[in-house]
Amino acid sequence: MSNRSKIIYTFTDEAPALATYSLLPIVKAFAASADIDVETRDISLAGRILAGFADQLGADQQIEDDLAKLAVLATSPEANIIKLPNISASVPQLRGAIAELQAQGFNIPDFPEDPQSEQEKEARARYNKVLGSAVNPVLREGNSDRRAPAAVKAYARKHPHSMGKWSMASQSHADYMRDGDFFSSEQSFTMDQAGDVRIEFVGQDGKVELKKVVSLQAGEVFDGMRMSCQKLRDFFEQTLQDCKETGVMWSLHVKATMMKISHPIVFGHAVSVYYKKAFEKHAKLFDELGVNPNNGLNSVYEKIKVLPASLQEEILHDLHECYSDRPEMAMVDSVKGITNLHIPSDVIVDASMPAMIRSSGQMWGKDGKLKDTKAVMPESTYARIYQEMINFCKTNGAFDPTTMGSVPNVGLMAQKAEEYGSHDKTFELETDGTMRVVLADGTVKIEHAVEAGDIWRACQTKDAPIRDWVKLAVTRARASNTPAVFWLDPERAHDRQLMLKVETYLKDHDTDGLELHIMDYNQAIRFSMERMIRGLDTISVTGNVLRDYLTDLFPIMELGTSAKMLSIVPLMAGGGMYETGAGGSAPKHVQQLVEENHLRWDSLGEFLALAVSLEETGIKTQNDKAKILGTTLDIATGKLLDNGKSPSRRTGELDNRGSHFYLAMYWAQALAAQTENAELAAHFAPLAKALTEQEATIVAELNEVQGKPVDIAGYYRSNKELTSQVMRPSATLNAAIDPLIG
Amino acid sequence: MSNRSKIIYTFTDEAPALATYSLLPIVKAFAASADIDVETRDISLAGRILAGFADQLGADQQIEDDLAKLAVLATSPEANIIKLPNISASVPQLRGAIAELQAQGFNIPDFPEDPQSEQEKEARARYNKVLGSAVNPVLREGNSDRRAPAAVKAYARKHPHSMGKWSMASQSHADYMRDGDFFSSEQSFTMDQAGDVRIEFVGQDGKVELKKVVSLQAGEVFDGMRMSCQKLRDFFEQTLQDCKETGVMWSLHVKATMMKISHPIVFGHAVSVYYKKAFEKHAKLFDELGVNPNNGLNSVYEKIKVLPASLQEEILHDLHECYSDRPEMAMVDSVKGITNLHIPSDVIVDASMPAMIRSSGQMWGKDGKLKDTKAVMPESTYARIYQEMINFCKTNGAFDPTTMGSVPNVGLMAQKAEEYGSHDKTFELETDGTMRVVLADGTVKIEHAVEAGDIWRACQTKDAPIRDWVKLAVTRARASNTPAVFWLDPERAHDRQLMLKVETYLKDHDTDGLELHIMDYNQAIRFSMERMIRGLDTISVTGNVLRDYLTDLFPIMELGTSAKMLSIVPLMAGGGMYETGAGGSAPKHVQQLVEENHLRWDSLGEFLALAVSLEETGIKTQNDKAKILGTTLDIATGKLLDNGKSPSRRTGELDNRGSHFYLAMYWAQALAAQTENAELAAHFAPLAKALTEQEATIVAELNEVQGKPVDIAGYYRSNKELTSQVMRPSATLNAAIDPLIG
Repeated sequence: MSNRSKIIYTFTDEAPALATYSLLPIVKAFAASADIDVETRDISLAGRILAGFADQLGADQQIEDDLAKLAVLATSPEANIIKLPNISASVPQLRGAIAELQAQGFNIPDFPEDPQSEQEKEARARYNKVLGSAVNPVLREGNSDRRAPAAVKAYARKHPHSMGKWSMASQSHADYMRDGDFFSSEQSFTMDQAGDVRIEFVGQDGKVELKKVVSLQAGEVFDGMRMSCQKLRDFFEQTLQDCKETGVMWSLHVKATMMKISHPIVFGHAVSVYYKKAFEKHAKLFDELGVNPNNGLNSVYEKIKVLPASLQEEILHDLHECYSDRPEMAMVDSVKGITNLHIPSDVIVDASMPAMIRSSGQMWGKDGKLKDTKAVMPESTYARIYQEMINFCKTNGAFDPTTMGSVPNVGLMAQKAEEYGSHDKTFELETDGTMRVVLADGTVKIEHAVEAGDIWRACQTKDAPIRDWVKLAVTRARASNTPAVFWLDPERAHDRQLMLKVETYLKDHDTDGLELHIMDYNQAIRFSMERMIRGLDTISVTGNVLRDYLTDLFPIMELGTSAKMLSIVPLMAGGGMYETGAGGSAPKHVQQLVEENHLRWDSLGEFLALAVSLEETGIKTQNDKAKILGTTLDIATGKLLDNGKSPSRRTGELDNRGSHFYLAMYWAQALAAQTENAELAAHFAPLAKALTEQEATIVAELNEVQGKPVDIAGYYRSNKELTSQVMRPSATLNAAIDPLIG
Repeated sequence: MSNRSKIIYTFTDEAPALATYSLLPIVKAFAASADIDVETRDISLAGRILAGFADQLGADQQIEDDLAKLAVLATSPEANIIKLPNISASVPQLRGAIAELQAQGFNIPDFPEDPQSEQEKEARARYNKVLGSAVNPVLREGNSDRRAPAAVKAYARKHPHSMGKWSMASQSHADYMRDGDFFSSEQSFTMDQAGDVRIEFVGQDGKVELKKVVSLQAGEVFDGMRMSCQKLRDFFEQTLQDCKETGVMWSLHVKATMMKISHPIVFGHAVSVYYKKAFEKHAKLFDELGVNPNNGLNSVYEKIKVLPASLQEEILHDLHECYSDRPEMAMVDSVKGITNLHIPSDVIVDASMPAMIRSSGQMWGKDGKLKDTKAVMPESTYARIYQEMINFCKTNGAFDPTTMGSVPNVGLMAQKAEEYGSHDKTFELETDGTMRVVLADGTVKIEHAVEAGDIWRACQTKDAPIRDWVKLAVTRARASNTPAVFWLDPERAHDRQLMLKVETYLKDHDTDGLELHIMDYNQAIRFSMERMIRGLDTISVTGNVLRDYLTDLFPIMELGTSAKMLSIVPLMAGGGMYETGAGGSAPKHVQQLVEENHLRWDSLGEFLALAVSLEETGIKTQNDKAKILGTTLDIATGKLLDNGKSPSRRTGELDNRGSHFYLAMYWAQALAAQTENAELAAHFAPLAKALTEQEATIVAELNEVQGKPVDIAGYYRSNKELTSQVMRPSATLNAAIDPLIG
């Protein structure tokens, strides 16, 4: 055990980055005891910008392209990466970062909105690489393993979150299209050998328009599916009529963020059907103004601002008149009068449905009261699991966090598997005709008659990720001695292709003694729930979308949040990436720090990820100390949760830094107390003693600095020294930690 | 093929017996062509009485004990019995029959209400054998095979019965005890060897009271279970509160007929909880009057009639006052103000729940309107299947008779298997203590702590019927090439014993290529329903109670009635019994015949049973003609249904006799048209021709007699000649049929 191992700790943005200034020295101090180096890689927005323009900066300003290096590392077996949340930059955020960096003396170009010159085009191309979700697709060279860590589960059992009581007479339900949606039209095939496929539109005149060429690998699964615009609109109308008759509130749930292309269109139809009378009356005017219902009712309000006041008033009146014909709509913010249809990204199905189910199946009405609701989710493929859970809660009552089992997830995700709608293979059709997918030799593999307004989309899933996903499922089933269920529906074309592969690839593994099932989604969720209420765990092995949905749905029932889940990406090349909790980078947290010197960010996700990272290091390098560091860190996290040492939101109380101190103290105590490795116990005994004895002093030092503004000289790229000073204000704590850093 | 075979056609009571006078000559005429004799056995109430007193009657009056002979026949391989519905005599019915027979000159004793002399005691013992359900237990020497005949299914698909639309927002549901009911306390064991068990009550003073000794066979399964009185009452109170809060109507569903001992008690608690205030206020008085809530609110009204008018008024007022605190209750007859709690046998779960599910999950309120309902069914063992179906209908809408598949049943029933509550092993406990089941050697196999008021019951199931049931399931799965599901719940003690046996006995059979499952009730009904809405059939292989429930539930969805199902009892000894449709013997039908000479009885059940009886005869005796008689009879029945030649309820239109004519005509036509057996075709061609040509004449002859009273000289034992003349009024038809009778 002379070779030193390495853990890569990503340096990201905003609150998680600030927290890193406080936590990382502690992590380094502990890791050093097991000969582990902890290094950072800068994948912050600022860092990625500067790396992109390194050739234009002074020698002292240049930084390396850490993301590119991480991408390479992710495909090598020794990767051990702790991935914190980073900014998926919108254009305004990008502009802000550029301005800040320029002010700091970095000679980078402005963001060219409408690039003309070669130089501008080059700059724009470089900036494009930084925009949006630029990190995850590069690093996610593996599938997803998400589960509730033991410490978190134990905490939830002892300190259950609130769960709204369910009535057997609840009228709430999830409604979905029975015909004409993607599910009912899905076609799928697997490539025998690598090759290109052409996505074509054939007009009624027979003219063929090439929409896109996609290069596929051998064994890759390719799907095409169509949503009928007419049937979608009929469906919305029928759900509205139904709510009007039954008095149940109406609510739309889509995923306009992940299904970036298709779901905003679906959302737009909901808007123009709900407000049909106003949209029909002002059709011509709305057209001229460029009103796009896909952007929500809010955008209509914005667009009409250019009109004379009287005309604005008339339109507003007509929009409001619609409410008298229509059922009550669920509110995002009843105080501000913001409905479900104001902003497309406000009601995201994977978060909104668990919230509804936790609240007795109810959502907020315009009077600020919770009411039974029809949750309208056009895509039957996924909507049915929510209806199944609603029926289950009606029958069995709300889930009980103190006794319920867990549903961890093994999700197909690697190499952009099953990425629907968030890419360039989704089309809204302008005229009637035929969409088809054609092989190089002219064979038509997929064909749909389409009508103007229909949405057609394709989806690809490479073979290697599927193979790896099956392996991961077997590995997790074995490791946790838990039944695993592949959620695959034999009535879905795509899933039939996957079932063939799953059945084949399962043969590559020793599945002796494992309980493995293949079930359709209804059966799978029911089976999991029946076990769950009996305190039993069941691994859900799912495709990418269900991964996304289930890793909110079950954690929110079990733990009250999905942010406390372990999110591990066992990389296909053999390494591991450990994602820390979701929840964004929280700009408000930074603001509170700068104004009041209090950071409410909870590093729980980092603690959990680090424990797994250490454990994996221990296993892969046969480093027993690393394993013990991992298990004791989990004990420390459990203690921290139990003792209520998570950060408070209120200035003057324990914050992020204070929680790090307690983590260090409990961790040192656990290490000193363990008997597996005497050397490690002896090594940490003095630290445990020092921190324990000086607890009051350290907490006082950490808390007394709060309440005053601080200067960290930057938002996107703060000054390292200033930030470090702010984030490490306890001389006593620093004196105990720093000598241990290798 | 020289040996003649024999079909036994039971002669029973009331309408089915009247119909027999018309149908049997036709049956005999057709059967003779395949060398089959059709003989009757008299198992009518009058016949059974006379047989019981044969030793006291004159030589010319004596009749043989046909039931005893049938019981012997049922245990021999050549049995082929067509069993029509007979009277399960109550005491008033028995008294009526005795009086009629005495008037006809039979020297039989009066019914001794309170027998004193030896002679009276002897007479009472003989009459006891005739009382109640005296026929089925004697003849049912086999398990149950119930399915929708092809002709009936085809008819339902073409002429679907009405199905109420389901709303996803329906508030209806089935509610049941989550704790303290029979399910949660069930204990079960299997006897290693034959022996007696003692059912004992141990008082708190340690005193042992022997409740009953039961002799068990080797391999017999014995169960004990307890329903907590307190938890039952708490449950009722909670369901009432819940309905009060949610505004959903309240309805009680029990099976006070089949579960003769336990369910009236359960029903009684519902009455005394719903009307708690009145029952508490008048507790002493009710006690003195002998008011028993188990007999329903109606019996309270009866009992208080002895009181002074003012006191009666006060009690009625107090009972009615209860309605103001309590939720609305489902009505049996809203016009007459008869609620769900008036008469214990009015709302029988196996009939009432399918009716509710067919009516959009709604029942009738006191304003005569259909309303969403909480169906209260304390026994969770069975109630959950209804909740599962309700959730299913909320999600998928009402079942569609034009496309839905079928769920035939193979039910465990032979030798009184799993007869709950309708016997002498159910006890309502008077004091706290312990109920236990003890082997001869003193081993305590079952033990329950009980409280005063608790209901404790035992249940026995012999091994041979289980073995036969498994065999029948395999046989049916093979014969119909249909998946079969054993409904067995691993969380139920009794079912765990059965699962062991099923797994063992399945090995005795060739199950290659069969799809056989063991599922708990929820899984089983869900699996069956998912298949059903896709047009697929699934055999339900169930215990006795589920047999009883499911053979109403699914047929009522599929066919609109359970009366049209085939009900076959493949006898364990190798013979067959073919039960014709349920539905009682219909006294009103007899009245209409006597007053208006119109018999509305539908012999469809007889047609269907006869076809299977003929087919089985054909198979067992390698008689091809018999097989063809069976298949052509099915064709004729299908044609009769299609052409609307079933009996009308209205005097002057086609009645039972007319439907028999059409059956004969279609049957003869089908036989003449078939090409499998030329001899048979030739034999029936003249009859087909004659009936076809004389259709108008015959129908006129059959209809023109209607509208006037007729005399058949008896209700329980009518005059044979007179009845035959009444039931065969068409000289033309008789002339065509009679020469063919062998």
